[in-house]
Amino acid sequence: MRRSEDPAELLSVASAAGSASAGRRALARLLSLVEQGGAPARLVGKLTYEKAGSAYSVGLTGAPGAGKSTLTGRLVGQALDQNAGRVAVLAIDPSSPLSGGAILGDRVRMQEHGLDANVYIRSMASRGHLGGLAAAVPDAVRLFDACGWPLVLVETVGVGQVEVEVAGTCDTVVVVLNPGWGDAVQANKAGLLEVADVLVINKADRPGVRETRRDLEHMLQLSGELEWTPPIVETVASSGEGLTDLYGAISSHRRHLEEGGGLARRRQARLAEEMERLVADASSQLVAGILGRLPARQAGIPPSEVDSALDAGRELLGRLAERELDPASGAEELGRIAARLSLAGERSPSP
Amino acid sequence: MRRSEDPAELLSVASAAGSASAGRRALARLLSLVEQGGAPARLVGKLTYEKAGSAYSVGLTGAPGAGKSTLTGRLVGQALDQNAGRVAVLAIDPSSPLSGGAILGDRVRMQEHGLDANVYIRSMASRGHLGGLAAAVPDAVRLFDACGWPLVLVETVGVGQVEVEVAGTCDTVVVVLNPGWGDAVQANKAGLLEVADVLVINKADRPGVRETRRDLEHMLQLSGELEWTPPIVETVASSGEGLTDLYGAISSHRRHLEEGGGLARRRQARLAEEMERLVADASSQLVAGILGRLPARQAGIPPSEVDSALDAGRELLGRLAERELDPASGAEELGRIAARLSLAGERSPSP
Repeated sequence: MRRSEDPAELLSVASAAGSASAGRRALARLLSLVEQGGAPARLVGKLTYEKAGSAYSVGLTGAPGAGKSTLTGRLVGQALDQNAGRVAVLAIDPSSPLSGGAILGDRVRMQEHGLDANVYIRSMASRGHLGGLAAAVPDAVRLFDACGWPLVLVETVGVGQVEVEVAGTCDTVVVVLNPGWGDAVQANKAGLLEVADVLVINKADRPGVRETRRDLEHMLQLSGELEWTPPIVETVASSGEGLTDLYGAISSHRRHLEEGGGLARRRQARLAEEMERLVADASSQLVAGILGRLPARQAGIPPSEVDSALDAGRELLGRLAERELDPASGAEELGRIAARLSLAGERSPSP
Repeated sequence: MRRSEDPAELLSVASAAGSASAGRRALARLLSLVEQGGAPARLVGKLTYEKAGSAYSVGLTGAPGAGKSTLTGRLVGQALDQNAGRVAVLAIDPSSPLSGGAILGDRVRMQEHGLDANVYIRSMASRGHLGGLAAAVPDAVRLFDACGWPLVLVETVGVGQVEVEVAGTCDTVVVVLNPGWGDAVQANKAGLLEVADVLVINKADRPGVRETRRDLEHMLQLSGELEWTPPIVETVASSGEGLTDLYGAISSHRRHLEEGGGLARRRQARLAEEMERLVADASSQLVAGILGRLPARQAGIPPSEVDSALDAGRELLGRLAERELDPASGAEELGRIAARLSLAGERSPSP
């Protein structure tokens, strides 16, 4: 490991140098390590978890084109105006082999803040991180936290399950909609309303605001009595209208969580979810290894067990092809093989 | 188990009675069993897997509002015109506690075929199915298959990871876009182009078709040499324009797969993915049980191990709260506890 790649050293530079350029460079390297996954990411996670716990995270999600990037840029401005200290932005793009990774186009709109030393903007895609983006993002948030960035905004690209999960790892979740019949219904379909702590009707200078608000209020009513009813805020991100209200709504939710003890409960629940994802992903990788779809080493199969594991996988696929075994029963067998492998890995760690 | 609920009996009725009303009723019950998950779904899966393998499945995905429902309705008409035999449609809606399940609004547009005995339309949401919708849908497709429905169209609501996964379980994947700059880029971001076998520019009577086609061709070029290059078809679903071309493109892809041996390879890979999901989900449920977030029985913890598992979970959460343990190391410990539990369940099955 090169000197400058040592996570502990990078972390101490990133913490000490703060928003100075040496600190930003160290932070950039650490974020890349987190993004890439594997043992270095594990080490960064271990080191930062000890120090983290004081930063606050806000997730923004909503349909593509709803104006999330512009809104995020405006929120950065609000936070700086209100002396929230340094602000980090994580822009989450699904990675794609075709595009070769994160698509940075939308980020351009936020570049005005890119020159401010108190703002750090980073696009992030998942590459090989166990547990996927929904586990990599909390790791990245804890990294900013440990390096002394008190506010992290997490913006997601789309409205899929993963995006909702990613936004849902944050302390406050902001769901961005546009006026017009149907948008609220689509958001509901995508499971967005369930995770929303603050609802935004952006582009509120367009027609249909009243209908969208009514739809949202109706859907919130249907969900029965809530501990916290998401406020509905109207904004025009392009002009900055309504941004003070939005920042205020986020701050209110934060106070609600901090005062009622809800923040600790929420964070514990989200840590549990994060670990569930990591275990699920590790199992899935082991099975992919057994079935010969992932190199044994990468799948986490102990070297001494590789041959027997691959034999078992081939035998199982054969019975499946002959229709002697159905997929659910096959999965049960694979689960047991994977369980034995993960315990074998514990008993005899590779040198 | 009531007589009419016995999967084997329902299956024999659904197979024998075909599209007659008794067959449709039995099919409806079987689909509900598959949707609900658990032991009855397992049994249906076992019984149908033995018989399945001859039906062909087509998945349609794309952004909300792209016109997938109308297009699916038109494809049903095309299939009937071309004597493809009975056609089943599975419309996949993400389930939401707020809406109380699948939202059926869009389905109304396909009702014209609902009266045709050779067409079976069903909305499906995942409720408790291990492996989620991406495992429930192949089960449902195999059910139609075993009951003698040779063609199954699977339409998804959104463009999230789950929707892409669901569409990706099908033999041919159709991705539906609209004209206009940005739609192709968004589709690429959402990972849709990677799974596409056929690309559709629907609402092709609107401006921007040429630009969207150019964007798509450019992105396909970037992906290098492909075994199969997805054709780009222009349609106007509302008027039926281009539907013969679309049906032809799907048929060409089918022939390509069947002639090159690709169909068997693709199906084997998708079975492997399905089993990976099932194992991952089972692990995740075990961990949720250990952490007290899911009832022990539902999590699959053997009755004799419940107390010790919950103790271990509490102890681990305590160390995590004290920051003596980081989430990744916690997940590793949980993975070992879960592995022991799943092997203990094998040695001493509950009576």
